[in-house]
Amino acid sequence: MKTSIPGPRSQELTKQLGDIQNVAAIHFFCNYDESRGNYLVDVDGNRMLDIYTQISSIPIGYNHPALLKLMSIPNNLSTLVNRPALGILPPENFPDQLTESLLSVAPKGMGRVQTMACGSCSNENAYKAMFIWYRNKERGHKSPSEEDLSSCMVNQVPGCPDLSILSFMGAFHGRTMGCLATTHSKAIHKLDVPSFDWPIAPFPTLRYPLEEFTRENAQEEARCLEEVEDLIVKWRQKGKPVAGIVIEPIQAEGGDNHASPDFFVSLRKIARKHGCAFHVDEVQTGGGNTGKQWAHEHWGMEDPADIMSFSKKLLTGGFFHKDEFQADKPFRIFNTWMGDPTKNLLLTEVLKVVRKENLLAEVTRSGKALMDGLYDLQAKYPGLLSRARGVGTFCAIDVCDDATRTSILVKARDKGVLLGGCGDRSIRFRPALVFKDYHVNIFLNIFNDVLAEHK
Amino acid sequence: MKTSIPGPRSQELTKQLGDIQNVAAIHFFCNYDESRGNYLVDVDGNRMLDIYTQISSIPIGYNHPALLKLMSIPNNLSTLVNRPALGILPPENFPDQLTESLLSVAPKGMGRVQTMACGSCSNENAYKAMFIWYRNKERGHKSPSEEDLSSCMVNQVPGCPDLSILSFMGAFHGRTMGCLATTHSKAIHKLDVPSFDWPIAPFPTLRYPLEEFTRENAQEEARCLEEVEDLIVKWRQKGKPVAGIVIEPIQAEGGDNHASPDFFVSLRKIARKHGCAFHVDEVQTGGGNTGKQWAHEHWGMEDPADIMSFSKKLLTGGFFHKDEFQADKPFRIFNTWMGDPTKNLLLTEVLKVVRKENLLAEVTRSGKALMDGLYDLQAKYPGLLSRARGVGTFCAIDVCDDATRTSILVKARDKGVLLGGCGDRSIRFRPALVFKDYHVNIFLNIFNDVLAEHK
Repeated sequence: MKTSIPGPRSQELTKQLGDIQNVAAIHFFCNYDESRGNYLVDVDGNRMLDIYTQISSIPIGYNHPALLKLMSIPNNLSTLVNRPALGILPPENFPDQLTESLLSVAPKGMGRVQTMACGSCSNENAYKAMFIWYRNKERGHKSPSEEDLSSCMVNQVPGCPDLSILSFMGAFHGRTMGCLATTHSKAIHKLDVPSFDWPIAPFPTLRYPLEEFTRENAQEEARCLEEVEDLIVKWRQKGKPVAGIVIEPIQAEGGDNHASPDFFVSLRKIARKHGCAFHVDEVQTGGGNTGKQWAHEHWGMEDPADIMSFSKKLLTGGFFHKDEFQADKPFRIFNTWMGDPTKNLLLTEVLKVVRKENLLAEVTRSGKALMDGLYDLQAKYPGLLSRARGVGTFCAIDVCDDATRTSILVKARDKGVLLGGCGDRSIRFRPALVFKDYHVNIFLNIFNDVLAEHK
Repeated sequence: MKTSIPGPRSQELTKQLGDIQNVAAIHFFCNYDESRGNYLVDVDGNRMLDIYTQISSIPIGYNHPALLKLMSIPNNLSTLVNRPALGILPPENFPDQLTESLLSVAPKGMGRVQTMACGSCSNENAYKAMFIWYRNKERGHKSPSEEDLSSCMVNQVPGCPDLSILSFMGAFHGRTMGCLATTHSKAIHKLDVPSFDWPIAPFPTLRYPLEEFTRENAQEEARCLEEVEDLIVKWRQKGKPVAGIVIEPIQAEGGDNHASPDFFVSLRKIARKHGCAFHVDEVQTGGGNTGKQWAHEHWGMEDPADIMSFSKKLLTGGFFHKDEFQADKPFRIFNTWMGDPTKNLLLTEVLKVVRKENLLAEVTRSGKALMDGLYDLQAKYPGLLSRARGVGTFCAIDVCDDATRTSILVKARDKGVLLGGCGDRSIRFRPALVFKDYHVNIFLNIFNDVLAEHK
């Protein structure tokens, strides 16, 4: 580290950007040219081990040689400069590219995929697909009535029906208005924005270490599942039936809240029993950080979901779905761009690298080293740390309070480790898939020094 | 033209893609490598004059040499492969790049800009900015109460207030759930998706040619403005105050519906009088097609709007806004990517080309030729065509009925001209900014042949 963070050049640029935008969230400015692998370099020449990776969105580290090579191929130039309206005029290689990239990692039972520009757009369109599916079912797959068609033009029932999506307290599904109605992680995300009266179920609050609280945790999960069923019934009685349930396999933004595979298996059954669609949001959990391509694979289910959305590490947004969730008519799930072939191109190469370098196995290995280290540190600093938890390198640990967490994050950064927070007082670990054992060791040593200062 | 459209290769690919997605909206597959300027080439070797340009989103034609050169510069590689979380870790050149690109075309009075991934995201966030602004005003710029903060977490008032956005019948502002509540162009966009009870005003239905119906049109606009004020009062009484008014300078998707500058001037005054924000949506009208960078410049106003959103030809989404519409806290207008520096890079070059080649003047020139030609054809085929209208090359003409329009669009395509429809029975012209006089002539000749067949 050459300067404190933000350094003088970052401060200068923040001031400059402050004339154009709100800069209160800016950490520092980056030199992406000089960044490599797990290391992010800032504009003051500081080099940091990046365990936050642009809010968990860099899959195989900075400036991976395979991606640099890909973008240098003259044949790819026309993809970079001619962005098509994919829904009406796709490029020749579009079906092949979807097959080589997204379909090669299609989740069980979901053989269809629609790309979108970002995570929020993906969830918004997944919700629309669930509403359309639900209403088609209600209509017995008959054509909409004249009243449906005329009332929807003025936002009224029956054309715009009073349907709902059930979400969980602590969830994060995005910030556009449909998504935001299912996001319940932080007040500042939702304050002042009109919303829908949709049901919100409690997410299990598990006690750690899990093996010591098996019975209590099972009870807690049963309580939440019971509440889900109650809410579905209650909202049906209110005239706002639940068309779909949306859930993250691990509540990420909300504080890395885990639940057991049994919980998800039971929830899936409840959805089926009540005729609700089941949407798994893998925007943050997907892409390999848990040691599997999708976090829901850890549930071991044959029929895990009806719809699964993704973005971030997949570089393009989108959602997989079962055949029956394909809209019955064109232009219902539609927008101008419908994704971006440049991102599909990059994703194809990323997935090749992941397979060639066997990165999911690497993640499992370094994830174990990371968890072992976190358990040791939490034993060493019991007043500071608790609730170490994780799958693969998708890990988190709690700090005694928010102020101490902030201080730890700042001090770690000053010593060259970039971390992010989540929930009220958790630190989340979100390294790239190229994060190895020795990066874990570098991190643990620095983290230990930081914690020692807080003891 | 070498085959009918879609040709055999397009049909084969459509079948292949049909196993992955809904393909009912696919026109044909494209060979973007071979496409040049105003000409789109399909996978069967057909070369078409493109006057639809990927739903109005290609600014300077296909494979413009300046863009190909830009994407070949090794210095730009790291931008292509390392997508940052712009809201927290922007690249060094970000402020300069915003200054050179978007700020160089900032609309009057709106010196701040926020990039977003697409048009819907831009409008969603613009709406949020208006709601935040409105509530801050209501709170007297004091901190939110404990009740605000706790109620918003469960989607309830007062934290999630019952505010509304006033929109116009025939409007199109996007398809995510907030935007969709203000979109009223086609039922199929809205059917089955829950919505908000927000006020919808009539948009003026003008009679053409405008100079013959001055008095009638002024009356019609006055009627609509009166209705706007009535709705604002009515929704305030309903307890759902109008936080903002959103309008397109020309309703594009809804049928190329124009209104006079006077109408917009009066509407702006009404917004100010009632304390509503005024949001001009230039997603389709912006970028130069009207002969000015932004269509609202034709109004000649000093203070045209509080917020102005864009996307499509700007290659990146986003919105400009006045200082007072900047959210008071970080993470209120936020998401992972907040746009894409690759698109900013392309936009900077596009704007350079527009200036260097003086393309806005070209648009005005070829727009006049296009309108003259449309007037001639409408005089020649009075039973077929009516209501020729336009500004610059942002033009449209009505066909006698929907079936005839479809037939004209298909026949024009078979003769090598790609056009799009809008509204119930309009054809919209959306060429790139490099569409010249001689392209107009090529088009008019072919169009005349097509019309002759329908006489």
